[in-house]
Amino acid sequence: MNIVVTPPALPEEPNVDLALKDARDQVMRETGTIPTGERAGSRKVYVQGELYPEIRVPFREVAVHPSANEPPVTIYDSSGPYTDPTVSIDIKRGLPKVKSSWQLDRGDIAPVANPRDVRPEDNGHASGRHLAPRFDTSNHRVFKGVPGRPVTQYEYARQGVITPEMEYVAIRENLRREQSAPCVRDGEDFGASIPDFVTPEFVRQEIARGRAIIPHNINHPEVEPMIIGRNFLVKINANIGNSAVLSSVDDEVDKLVWATRWGADNVMDLSTGRNIHNIRDWIIRNSSVPIGTVPIYQALEKVGGIAEDLTWEVYRDTLIEQAEQGVDYFTIHAGVRLPFVPLTANRVTGIVSRGGSIMAKWCLSHHRESFLYEHFADICEIMRAYDVSFSLGDGLRPGSIADANDEAQFAELRTLGELTKIAWDHGCQVMIEGPGHVPMHKIKANMDEQLKHCHEAPFYTLGPLTTDIAPGYDHITSAIGAAMIGWFGTAMLCYVTPKEHLGLPDRQDVKDGVITYKIAAHAADLAKGHPAARAHDDALSRARFEFRWEDQFNLGLDPETARKYHDATLPKEAHKTAHFCSMCGPKFCSMKISQDIRRDAQAQNDAGGSLAEAEAGMAEMSAKFRAGGGAIEVKV
Amino acid sequence: MNIVVTPPALPEEPNVDLALKDARDQVMRETGTIPTGERAGSRKVYVQGELYPEIRVPFREVAVHPSANEPPVTIYDSSGPYTDPTVSIDIKRGLPKVKSSWQLDRGDIAPVANPRDVRPEDNGHASGRHLAPRFDTSNHRVFKGVPGRPVTQYEYARQGVITPEMEYVAIRENLRREQSAPCVRDGEDFGASIPDFVTPEFVRQEIARGRAIIPHNINHPEVEPMIIGRNFLVKINANIGNSAVLSSVDDEVDKLVWATRWGADNVMDLSTGRNIHNIRDWIIRNSSVPIGTVPIYQALEKVGGIAEDLTWEVYRDTLIEQAEQGVDYFTIHAGVRLPFVPLTANRVTGIVSRGGSIMAKWCLSHHRESFLYEHFADICEIMRAYDVSFSLGDGLRPGSIADANDEAQFAELRTLGELTKIAWDHGCQVMIEGPGHVPMHKIKANMDEQLKHCHEAPFYTLGPLTTDIAPGYDHITSAIGAAMIGWFGTAMLCYVTPKEHLGLPDRQDVKDGVITYKIAAHAADLAKGHPAARAHDDALSRARFEFRWEDQFNLGLDPETARKYHDATLPKEAHKTAHFCSMCGPKFCSMKISQDIRRDAQAQNDAGGSLAEAEAGMAEMSAKFRAGGGAIEVKV
Repeated sequence: MNIVVTPPALPEEPNVDLALKDARDQVMRETGTIPTGERAGSRKVYVQGELYPEIRVPFREVAVHPSANEPPVTIYDSSGPYTDPTVSIDIKRGLPKVKSSWQLDRGDIAPVANPRDVRPEDNGHASGRHLAPRFDTSNHRVFKGVPGRPVTQYEYARQGVITPEMEYVAIRENLRREQSAPCVRDGEDFGASIPDFVTPEFVRQEIARGRAIIPHNINHPEVEPMIIGRNFLVKINANIGNSAVLSSVDDEVDKLVWATRWGADNVMDLSTGRNIHNIRDWIIRNSSVPIGTVPIYQALEKVGGIAEDLTWEVYRDTLIEQAEQGVDYFTIHAGVRLPFVPLTANRVTGIVSRGGSIMAKWCLSHHRESFLYEHFADICEIMRAYDVSFSLGDGLRPGSIADANDEAQFAELRTLGELTKIAWDHGCQVMIEGPGHVPMHKIKANMDEQLKHCHEAPFYTLGPLTTDIAPGYDHITSAIGAAMIGWFGTAMLCYVTPKEHLGLPDRQDVKDGVITYKIAAHAADLAKGHPAARAHDDALSRARFEFRWEDQFNLGLDPETARKYHDATLPKEAHKTAHFCSMCGPKFCSMKISQDIRRDAQAQNDAGGSLAEAEAGMAEMSAKFRAGGGAIEVKV
Repeated sequence: MNIVVTPPALPEEPNVDLALKDARDQVMRETGTIPTGERAGSRKVYVQGELYPEIRVPFREVAVHPSANEPPVTIYDSSGPYTDPTVSIDIKRGLPKVKSSWQLDRGDIAPVANPRDVRPEDNGHASGRHLAPRFDTSNHRVFKGVPGRPVTQYEYARQGVITPEMEYVAIRENLRREQSAPCVRDGEDFGASIPDFVTPEFVRQEIARGRAIIPHNINHPEVEPMIIGRNFLVKINANIGNSAVLSSVDDEVDKLVWATRWGADNVMDLSTGRNIHNIRDWIIRNSSVPIGTVPIYQALEKVGGIAEDLTWEVYRDTLIEQAEQGVDYFTIHAGVRLPFVPLTANRVTGIVSRGGSIMAKWCLSHHRESFLYEHFADICEIMRAYDVSFSLGDGLRPGSIADANDEAQFAELRTLGELTKIAWDHGCQVMIEGPGHVPMHKIKANMDEQLKHCHEAPFYTLGPLTTDIAPGYDHITSAIGAAMIGWFGTAMLCYVTPKEHLGLPDRQDVKDGVITYKIAAHAADLAKGHPAARAHDDALSRARFEFRWEDQFNLGLDPETARKYHDATLPKEAHKTAHFCSMCGPKFCSMKISQDIRRDAQAQNDAGGSLAEAEAGMAEMSAKFRAGGGAIEVKV
């Protein structure tokens, strides 16, 4: 099941000096840690497109024990080629280009004649052993939209064109439910319009209305398209990135692959400090999920960390640099306007967004309106040319329960709504970022205000954390809020790890954050009544009821952990088929008793099932039950 | 800070044979593991009663750094004498008897002339080295209510009597908020009646209306009284207990102390298998929190595990045995009626409650109505005589998302409502158990139905789990549901550990479960607008904003873990006073920038704070800001 990692046979490297080569070798030695191979108990499968037969949409299929007499369960798979045993992984070469041909076939994009060169300031003037190795970009041709032609998914959708990306996500969202019996819809969707079955045309309509986006830079052809919108499955984002204090290239690529292996749909590279450019190349070229960034972080590095020295020109240069690399969405804090800044002065925790505080400081220092706000149309033009999606940042989000839903926050939100319309007018895809720290009773207002002021553009929230008192457990404080706001209509949930407020997440933190947010997203899908959601729960519950331990593990979000916990008390292989567990022991199992009851009551119940009928038939049933041997013990 | 554990100087033990003594010594050697000493960064304090000056209500007080110029934060403290450095702990002797004098002073209880002796079947006929050591009960006098006199808190409350227990919990609930400035009430309480300040008279009224209980058997004088009700702080319960497969005396006492150390308000001993009686003695005598049990578990052991062989007489004997030991509340599955059993036959996971499945099997086998239902009045009489509270069990709770809110579940709930009135008529205190596995959109209906049919008796739910797909993470799947149902009005949340569905919880699982449920309960208190809740969040957030790292750790639910996570990347002591953390590094801190903004904008904002005024004053502010030195770097 494990795939072979291609040995580090270096390709031609005309411009790489020896020091750089050493550093690259260092990275290569570390690639053994990149997790590959199929997930436990899973098989990678693909579904072909119909409109576009070249499309191959990946799924993770979990087969259950033959005794169940059930088809395999199809699970959404964000893990990319890393879990495909037929693909050779070499992080030095990057991933296969899934989308290149589709994009080129449209003829709407063309190579950039003079792409921007890497400059020393892109990596914070790091040099020598302090410079992270460069990814070999000789195979990365930089494209840009052809003037006068559509380039964004929003523009195609508005023109009535169904792109391969749209068919891809339609197939992906359905989880092969066309193969299942029609489900009974059950849920409260608060006015969403979730269809029984997702067609490519439905995807097109949702994108055209601005209610969904497919974040994918034309310069990131390695992406397996995915959709973010209220009428689709709730998605999750994982943040990675080095800081001035910690982390390195191989750590970040490892975290990327690790996060998507466990189910991250998107990843944001929030690197600060030096080497931002080089690390981002490694991340993008090895990512099958959309990558987001906050360009102001790198722009600030380029001006030596002095917020007042930021200029539109430095920022613009950074947008082009990152757009040409292939970043799929940018967080742009253009809603942090000069007049809103004083509204934060009496807050308990002020401005907690890094981007927000940088812009606030710039505005105050210059007493000028934000250059992001004033140049917003220019920003739109740049992003449109590569189909980089907007993630309009909530720079004034609350950082504590005390500051939730205040005027600063909602003034910014209304501004984001204005900007959304401008971005759409320029043909861009847009989503809106949201908080933060919000107690449960104030969560729904966030969704309601967002829907009202941002014209149903997808909402993308961080948590929210529902209390401030649990540093070390903020994946949990925030999963509560995330599940709720996902239910109310948020399209993507940005994970929070146990290290939030305390430090940079390590590998275990990334996994804990991702699994926790998969829970929140799925709980939201269930509550919304998403037609593809409950089949997974039901399959696992049937396995649990029938003591199919292996199936229960494999259908869980984390089979390894479930198995480890089970084996902690009942390690023997025989226990994997035992009709009991360590909680009650062999003599005492309610599931077993319940199966006895079902066996004997089934006939009775099938005949009617009403209370009155049930009572009337009890005498007969009791006799049968005793005759059938009503002992409670289970032979082991 | 660590207190000395009394050395194992054995007291007189006339009736202990040598084998038993060996076993006891074994236990004593293990007492070194019982966690004692004050919590990190905390001080144990007591508040004296006014109506009853002998009352001393414990709190945990966290002092913050002098630079904050703030009073200490008062935190609810369920940890008992174990965290009092002035108390010597000796688990062989048990805890001091907090309540003895109060109860005896009332003259309404009297020693039982012939208390029930321990019988071999009470411990599953375990003998020799298989028999768990007996706790020395020579100091435990068994009491019972005097006929014709009140004995339960419900009866006192109905008669207009404010007991010491009532004043105790009133003081406890207020968290010394009489010392704070009046809070601004903010929340959605769904029709609860949470007062600004809890008076003993309010407590009496709530108990008299059946809306709250103080679970405390007169034979458990070690209990520090606590209250469970919708108009009080949300409480949490931790389950411990050995099974036929695992665990021992010292493990269980350790788990008890460990669970309460982290904040469990109640503990249920769910032991099965042998040694149930002896282990329970150790638990009760060493517990300062109410202990609950499910007596049918032990009754089943007494009939060799054959549900059909259960009789009212065996059950009745078990109730008396446990009531005399001092169990504070019994889960009684009297709502699992014969006609409801067939309603479960088509469920995905049948009956998942152990007690429920035992009773269902008994009913079917005999084709008779449940003896618990038929003898309910007799059960009331027994429980009243010791003030054992009812926890009316939800034997038909759903065990999967598919089975949530079905007719079986709600038919039982309505029956529990009928039984509630009968129990009240007999003078008993009552709470109602609830599910289970419920998707988010079906949670509120559980609370609404419970309030409607059970006459506002306190609701006590297990989770609920909001999805079935995450074995190994069900503390999280359930914390989402628990926080929500707590917000809606559930008075106590039964924890779920990461081992749920997989195995018996170990020490780490117990802690994870407790902390997770403290989060859920506190998030619920915040959302309900409980006036004592937000002070804790605000104090922690101020500490966070002002880089008081030690205060942030100490105010958190788990200071050790928060500190460990912080130190993983910034281990030096100097970093504890640093104005940055490893997420952003020294140059980039939004909190620091925000403090700069606040400093300079404060004057401006204090003058008005409206958008228009703010904008008008920006030029002046900007000038001041730059003059004041607007650099973003922080000196380390």
